[in-house]
Amino acid sequence: MIHNITGKIDFIESLRGKKATFMLAMSNTDTANIEGITQAGIPGKIYLTPTLDSEFLTTGEVRSLGNVAATPKGVPTPALITRAIHLLNPFSNIELINLGLEKLPKIDYFKIHDFSIKPSGSISDGANIDAQSLFQQGVAFGQKYKCKDDYIILGESVPSGTTTAKATALALGYDASKNFSSSFKDVPNDVRENTIQDALKNISLNDDIFKILGSISDNMIIFNAGFILGLNNSTPIILAGGTQMVCVLLVVNKILEVMQGEIETSNLALATTSWIANDTNSDIEALLNMCNFTINSYYADFNFFGSKHPALKLYDDGEAKEGVGAGGALVYGMINGLNKEQITKQVEEFLK
Amino acid sequence: MIHNITGKIDFIESLRGKKATFMLAMSNTDTANIEGITQAGIPGKIYLTPTLDSEFLTTGEVRSLGNVAATPKGVPTPALITRAIHLLNPFSNIELINLGLEKLPKIDYFKIHDFSIKPSGSISDGANIDAQSLFQQGVAFGQKYKCKDDYIILGESVPSGTTTAKATALALGYDASKNFSSSFKDVPNDVRENTIQDALKNISLNDDIFKILGSISDNMIIFNAGFILGLNNSTPIILAGGTQMVCVLLVVNKILEVMQGEIETSNLALATTSWIANDTNSDIEALLNMCNFTINSYYADFNFFGSKHPALKLYDDGEAKEGVGAGGALVYGMINGLNKEQITKQVEEFLK
Repeated sequence: MIHNITGKIDFIESLRGKKATFMLAMSNTDTANIEGITQAGIPGKIYLTPTLDSEFLTTGEVRSLGNVAATPKGVPTPALITRAIHLLNPFSNIELINLGLEKLPKIDYFKIHDFSIKPSGSISDGANIDAQSLFQQGVAFGQKYKCKDDYIILGESVPSGTTTAKATALALGYDASKNFSSSFKDVPNDVRENTIQDALKNISLNDDIFKILGSISDNMIIFNAGFILGLNNSTPIILAGGTQMVCVLLVVNKILEVMQGEIETSNLALATTSWIANDTNSDIEALLNMCNFTINSYYADFNFFGSKHPALKLYDDGEAKEGVGAGGALVYGMINGLNKEQITKQVEEFLK
Repeated sequence: MIHNITGKIDFIESLRGKKATFMLAMSNTDTANIEGITQAGIPGKIYLTPTLDSEFLTTGEVRSLGNVAATPKGVPTPALITRAIHLLNPFSNIELINLGLEKLPKIDYFKIHDFSIKPSGSISDGANIDAQSLFQQGVAFGQKYKCKDDYIILGESVPSGTTTAKATALALGYDASKNFSSSFKDVPNDVRENTIQDALKNISLNDDIFKILGSISDNMIIFNAGFILGLNNSTPIILAGGTQMVCVLLVVNKILEVMQGEIETSNLALATTSWIANDTNSDIEALLNMCNFTINSYYADFNFFGSKHPALKLYDDGEAKEGVGAGGALVYGMINGLNKEQITKQVEEFLK
């Protein structure tokens, strides 16, 4: 089942049976190197997470390291969910967007869009991104992009991305301090909050928006805000993610405010997991409602209640709530006839 | 399993794995307001049936009324079957054709072809349709229609449509008095027959064919006869229905006779339910054989023997035999790998 967060069911129903391109936007930020800030990956190798996620998603193999990226408690990456969907009811295309990776995935045949973007710095010291140029690269990409399928599902893999997303929203003046999610169950508020407070000291609310973004955001957020504006409603696109993807929308919203522009959003939607939609530590609906435009947003009624695997029970306990487009992939699977049992069984196969 | 009524299995086998656009032709006729003539809908709200059917088919929600259209004995609309197929193995597109609805469905994103057609009058007083103009609209639509998929499945939702279909066939001189189906198990012959006899009094067999059709038929039948001739075998099309869809063919046949024309029918087929194919109160095969052209026709070997739900047992008892393209949808599901158990389970889900 698919449920609305905001809007109506019609948009997603109209995509039933249609073909999708899954795009994965990947980037590294040195913010992830701050001790204890993220659990997206292997300690000491956290920067490899998007590389490994994209290898596993496309090939089923983890090539740049021995094992699938897992958290300290053994929660595997949500890439398992996205890959499971791809095996059961394949996306028609998978394309990767390199928005500043430390290490390229070792894969052939799959399209990797490359823009010579470098990993960004830690927001505690200023991320050091040329945000205006990066944003414009995103706009140009959206304007020229020709989708081979009926719609796009856009996921992300950015270690410590919820921290940069929250910092971004606060820096842009949104009253969002209690609304952001974390991949941790027991959110390490001290480390995260200290980092965000440090980052906010580097900027002033009166700064130019691109100066703010360049100091406190990440490449994924800035580029995709441009991508969405460049697409300009011409192709249906589902932002597959949680509060990080909502932050992309908040940036779009702020840029439109500054530029006194408008955007048609009938072909723009967001899809996430039930772990995000029902998270008591964050409020994605409140964040969505901070935009001046309205979009259709959804979550997939999926959980691992039917599984006995201890690593998967941890998802239900609130670890690793979203990422690698897992929520959007689940919605895609469900509008193409997959059910919870099939998906659970496939994910369990990976853990054998 | 799929069985032939007429022709060979090859046509439908050649569509295995191919993509389908499901089109629903909807219209209202005041004939349905005659007390006791139809069970397609909620008493007093029968005119809403096609509106509700199309809402449920596309969105899974009934928006113009609280509950799914059901008959007095509690038999739900065959739209449940068509929607179940769409959930399990989606059609690639659903498009609606408004051929004179009292009330438009409340849906976004789905294509609704509109021709500013008004609901038709009761055939007992003369249906008051400009049949030639309507037919020509159908021809023009067929000539310009570009199918996005490999083939079309054309269903209908027209309350009291079996009555107008039977009246149409008789008025055109077909010896079909014992061959027409009804959505009732115990066909209310008195009301239906009296209406048809009243209708026949309004016309003369020597009248121009469009004068006859305009007095005694319905918008769905007349428009689709034009649609089929306009398509002219260029796109494979499955008429998904029972004796109403055969009546469309009888009209095509009569128009070709009058105009001394011919039509290639290798891409024209009909698919219906086992409840129609095995109905002892009607004879679809005899009706099909009244055409001068031959077409491939099929029925899906599907029933609710495997269900314990009392509402679904009524289908097997002969209530609500066809409609909303249920037979064609079942055939589509079966050539795409669905089995009886999956379909039954999904329909039962709706009734929980």
